[in-house]
Amino acid sequence: MEVTIKNIFQKSDSFYQKKIVVNGWIRNCRFQKKLIFIEINDGTFLENLQIVCKEEILQNLDLENLKEILQIGASLRIEGILKENQTIFQLFEVLAHNVILLGSSNSSYPIQPKKHSNAFLRTVTHLRARTKLFGAVFRIRSTAFLALHNFFYQKGFFHVSTPIITANDGEGAGELFQLTSLNLENLPKETSQLDYQKDFFGKKVFLTVTGQLEAEAMALALNKVYTFGPVFRAEKSNTPRHAAEFWMLESEMAFCDLKQNIKIVQEMLQTVIAKCLEENRKDIEFLDQTVRKGLVQELTNIFQEKEFLVIKYQEVVEILNKSGIEFENKIFYGSDLATEHEKFLTEQHFKKPVFVIDWPKEIKAFYMKNNSDQKTVAAMDLLVPRVGELIGGSQREENLLVLIEKMKQMNIPQKDLEWYLDLRRFGGCIHSGFGLGFERLLIFLTGLDNIRDVIAFPRTYHNLTF
Amino acid sequence: MEVTIKNIFQKSDSFYQKKIVVNGWIRNCRFQKKLIFIEINDGTFLENLQIVCKEEILQNLDLENLKEILQIGASLRIEGILKENQTIFQLFEVLAHNVILLGSSNSSYPIQPKKHSNAFLRTVTHLRARTKLFGAVFRIRSTAFLALHNFFYQKGFFHVSTPIITANDGEGAGELFQLTSLNLENLPKETSQLDYQKDFFGKKVFLTVTGQLEAEAMALALNKVYTFGPVFRAEKSNTPRHAAEFWMLESEMAFCDLKQNIKIVQEMLQTVIAKCLEENRKDIEFLDQTVRKGLVQELTNIFQEKEFLVIKYQEVVEILNKSGIEFENKIFYGSDLATEHEKFLTEQHFKKPVFVIDWPKEIKAFYMKNNSDQKTVAAMDLLVPRVGELIGGSQREENLLVLIEKMKQMNIPQKDLEWYLDLRRFGGCIHSGFGLGFERLLIFLTGLDNIRDVIAFPRTYHNLTF
Repeated sequence: MEVTIKNIFQKSDSFYQKKIVVNGWIRNCRFQKKLIFIEINDGTFLENLQIVCKEEILQNLDLENLKEILQIGASLRIEGILKENQTIFQLFEVLAHNVILLGSSNSSYPIQPKKHSNAFLRTVTHLRARTKLFGAVFRIRSTAFLALHNFFYQKGFFHVSTPIITANDGEGAGELFQLTSLNLENLPKETSQLDYQKDFFGKKVFLTVTGQLEAEAMALALNKVYTFGPVFRAEKSNTPRHAAEFWMLESEMAFCDLKQNIKIVQEMLQTVIAKCLEENRKDIEFLDQTVRKGLVQELTNIFQEKEFLVIKYQEVVEILNKSGIEFENKIFYGSDLATEHEKFLTEQHFKKPVFVIDWPKEIKAFYMKNNSDQKTVAAMDLLVPRVGELIGGSQREENLLVLIEKMKQMNIPQKDLEWYLDLRRFGGCIHSGFGLGFERLLIFLTGLDNIRDVIAFPRTYHNLTF
Repeated sequence: MEVTIKNIFQKSDSFYQKKIVVNGWIRNCRFQKKLIFIEINDGTFLENLQIVCKEEILQNLDLENLKEILQIGASLRIEGILKENQTIFQLFEVLAHNVILLGSSNSSYPIQPKKHSNAFLRTVTHLRARTKLFGAVFRIRSTAFLALHNFFYQKGFFHVSTPIITANDGEGAGELFQLTSLNLENLPKETSQLDYQKDFFGKKVFLTVTGQLEAEAMALALNKVYTFGPVFRAEKSNTPRHAAEFWMLESEMAFCDLKQNIKIVQEMLQTVIAKCLEENRKDIEFLDQTVRKGLVQELTNIFQEKEFLVIKYQEVVEILNKSGIEFENKIFYGSDLATEHEKFLTEQHFKKPVFVIDWPKEIKAFYMKNNSDQKTVAAMDLLVPRVGELIGGSQREENLLVLIEKMKQMNIPQKDLEWYLDLRRFGGCIHSGFGLGFERLLIFLTGLDNIRDVIAFPRTYHNLTF
């Protein structure tokens, strides 16, 4: 019976004394007099499986050159019997009957069994998922990804695919990737102007920074929707927080106000954390031991929190001003929160996640709903320890005239967004939504602090390989 | 109690005589002497809910102008009681106690209750999901999307996010979108050459056409993986089959040969079909009635098929040559199959899906595994009625020297793919994978024949709006 290492660790009882077949890559190898201990891993689980083989069973291998053949990184197919073990290090091991070399390795294999820096491992992203650390990270990534999808599915949301290629220049943020099918060495120019009629779409187009507006259109037809895909920023910042390509989950809900929005966000976050703690317990415990002490407890606490705090922006400003701390970024009513403020609030003051609501309208996007004070908007940011802003959302302005007025004030050209205004002209309704940066969630879940380590093949400023 | 229309249709029994609150958009309205019948839909379900209200209860509305207010497309909040109905048209209706206008509409609303052509509805993609047809399509899209994710999750696969931005020029296919953060009106040039050092990544980069190679790297670490995201083609074809941006599911499996690959593909397809037939029965029945007669039966047949046919390419060529049909594209050993051939095979000859395997190596990609005859490769295409090729896959060449030789023969520069060769240098193993064009699957599931109608906001040649 062919089994995975995860199968064995989860149900070892049912395999004892049974013949099994297991495939995997050599993570370590010890040669004793007449015994060889091979630790293999197949990627399905954090722990290695110990294979015990007597030299004589390695028949089909070249006995003279066993050490050459059983190199770290080589892939093997093992046939043998699962035995209970007496040692404290291993609960069980496989007594091999047959060892088949599937693919060899050699001493230039970069992932030798020793401590590697994350910086080094970033130079071999095509191999690093074979380490304990990155195996754990990418298994957690997969679990969190699926848990998010299933959370929305259970709640009756529809998944929608919002477009990646867009003509919307993201409110002139200016940090967009433009795309073209033209030959950059030989651009078609009418006088000095570029002739976009010759380009694929007949106009200037970009990679999207958000799918929100299109998701709103779908929510106002299908009720509750979410989109989950890659978004792009051409921001030339070389920091552990910036990636040019990352994944964002955005949800839009018709007939939903800010309060219900907040409730969904909390439930979503707690569901994902619970799922990862359950499914990836070993992986998270490993990260707790090696990357961030206390991670398991930290995640458990948040999962157990009954109701996340909800504080008005104005109160937050007062708390920060009364803190006695000299922040690098001065805080005053009307200033945005910087990471240092978010960290103080979640790590020192409240020591837990907090929703900050009712922000000054001047520092928030045009589509957010004006509160009745006409000064603030029904926006919410969820701040969490270590990461700061994890989720941002708001009730959307559904009043056509107010929305047009806000666009004017913020110099958003109306003509490109007539379709968006149609959503208010024809059956607009109270609706809300939020966005979650998926890699920020992963930084939170894994305890790692560099975005390059939670993306399989990261794309950052002047850095694109594989 | 606030409920959705889907809730009501699925469990009407439990709501009879109960007070409910339901939100939705007006799809139709009939005024009788002292009664108004409003049909509302909230996007969660195909069918409309009938609301009965006596004029006098529409208190908070302007009674004089009721017809003006109850415009098609307006959004309402209804409070009332669910009553069983005696008519054959409706099983139940809501007797309204209170009707609240959430968002008005007016006579310029494009989706009036009459037959619209799909071509017209493509001009209002921001509103078309409010029609019965497109509501059904996008609900099915969501179900199929989740069903695919959950199929792989159940099987122990890990989801991986392969990169969208790539330096790989897709084997010189020449139909790529290039992306840049440079100003196209003012490109930095060293003599006549463009200075890519000034561009965001310091090199020439493109939108991906496939995540396969990176998925292989992850499979050779995590065992069985899949990636599911947008891919791009700058192909200037204006046909119902071509989109510049579409979604592709790609799976890679370590320790898996072509036979196991075929088995997984069949199981995946049948699982998705079964899930959609269950979850979206009403939607698919509607498509059966309005778009493609016999759709339900067609899907059911495929779901019930025990084992899909598996035929060698060579046999297929013989069948086609013996068919007596004069194909526009001549068929001979070494030619690729055209749509007309695929249709003949699946719709006339076999009348069912068929895997075509063992293709001539010259017409398949460099990474496919040579069969022992050294003439064919262990590739498989799954052909299905109406769509033709739905899925393509192969066992991958795991032998380093053979792979290098194949790259040479096909003029694939080795230096850009050294990392890919590393996957054979260090613990390579038998592995296989496949790709599914998600929109092709949706064409198959919905009976529609235009890719623009299964993508919420399609991007095609010289066509990008919203």
